[in-house]
Amino acid sequence: MQDIPGPAVYRISFYLRQLETFQRAEHETISSKQLGKALGYTDAQVRKDLTYFGQFGHPGVGYRVDELIGRLKKILGTDRVWPVILVGAGNLGRALMSYKGFLRKGFQLSAVFDADAAKIGRRFGDLEIEPMENLPRIVGQLQIRMAIIAVTPEAAQGVLDFLIEAGIRGVLNFSPANLKSPSDIFVQSVDLAVQLEQLSFRMSLGDPSDALPQDESRSVR
Amino acid sequence: MQDIPGPAVYRISFYLRQLETFQRAEHETISSKQLGKALGYTDAQVRKDLTYFGQFGHPGVGYRVDELIGRLKKILGTDRVWPVILVGAGNLGRALMSYKGFLRKGFQLSAVFDADAAKIGRRFGDLEIEPMENLPRIVGQLQIRMAIIAVTPEAAQGVLDFLIEAGIRGVLNFSPANLKSPSDIFVQSVDLAVQLEQLSFRMSLGDPSDALPQDESRSVR
Repeated sequence: MQDIPGPAVYRISFYLRQLETFQRAEHETISSKQLGKALGYTDAQVRKDLTYFGQFGHPGVGYRVDELIGRLKKILGTDRVWPVILVGAGNLGRALMSYKGFLRKGFQLSAVFDADAAKIGRRFGDLEIEPMENLPRIVGQLQIRMAIIAVTPEAAQGVLDFLIEAGIRGVLNFSPANLKSPSDIFVQSVDLAVQLEQLSFRMSLGDPSDALPQDESRSVR
Repeated sequence: MQDIPGPAVYRISFYLRQLETFQRAEHETISSKQLGKALGYTDAQVRKDLTYFGQFGHPGVGYRVDELIGRLKKILGTDRVWPVILVGAGNLGRALMSYKGFLRKGFQLSAVFDADAAKIGRRFGDLEIEPMENLPRIVGQLQIRMAIIAVTPEAAQGVLDFLIEAGIRGVLNFSPANLKSPSDIFVQSVDLAVQLEQLSFRMSLGDPSDALPQDESRSVR
């Protein structure tokens, strides 16, 4: 499964989102054509993507919506609850956590840390902001492996190194910084300025009709 | 330039960011090898990417940092100022705007809109939150073509249609919704939940105890 192209994994997220919509509308089964049409993909593309992960279809029936949702969640690892920590309790960190849909059922915010002494002890949702020196102990006790970084670009590399040292294995990074990490650590960076630059690039070309599908244009890094 | 693959455009953003770092450190010239090394790319990759956009190198000198920055900004369309509007003045919208580096020199927030009557007229940075019905007039008067959507998933498609009707051509969408738009409109979606799912997918792969049952893994490896 290591060889699955990044964009296909993105599409799995979109298929899952769309299937949940069909589920709410009480569809029991769905064809690759219906699923593709709702997302702007060909049915061949849908079938090819799902084939990376196993055989899902039933001849003459198509996909059973509940079953496919369950299997895609398992593939994406969101069939369990991942405890995550947040480092950086500033505006961005607060917004991320209050953003509907960001922390879905599969993720639970377990602790929040900040280097700013003035913030320590303040409420953050149901949690209290902890000082950085408590991070290794808490990560160890709660066996947390996933972290979200929402600190300044200057602080980001230091925070990442500290997190890895504490046992974190995967990071979602919102700092506009080029971070370096060992190859067995997975860092997913979301540089919001880069997203705007993609937009201005397409607008400058004056012909956005050749825009890539959303999943592919987001899959880099 | 229409045929440039999306990922190459992303890399241009990263090259630009890295070149600005070299500029601050007062480097005057740089080789493709140095630039690649700083970002984890091969020098062949760097040269290939830059070739999409023209001839930049100087034999025996490498790239002149100032010159290359100027040309990459021109390519990305950030050598001018793009006025943008924000629709959705909630937590996420506020955080995006206060997030350092999100609105760089190339982008200027020109107006903010919200459908919530209770928010109209409140301060938002230097601006005042406007009602949605003012949007077409303001977009027309200021000749704005770019918008950021930070509304609920339920409202997003309606907002997008309204924006297009008003003359907006490019959109950065932060709502976790599958939006549909005509092919001449460029919509760049940033679904933060999808980013977390990519992370849990990678983390699931990395843990042998979470391996898929035999029948599922067969077709994949």
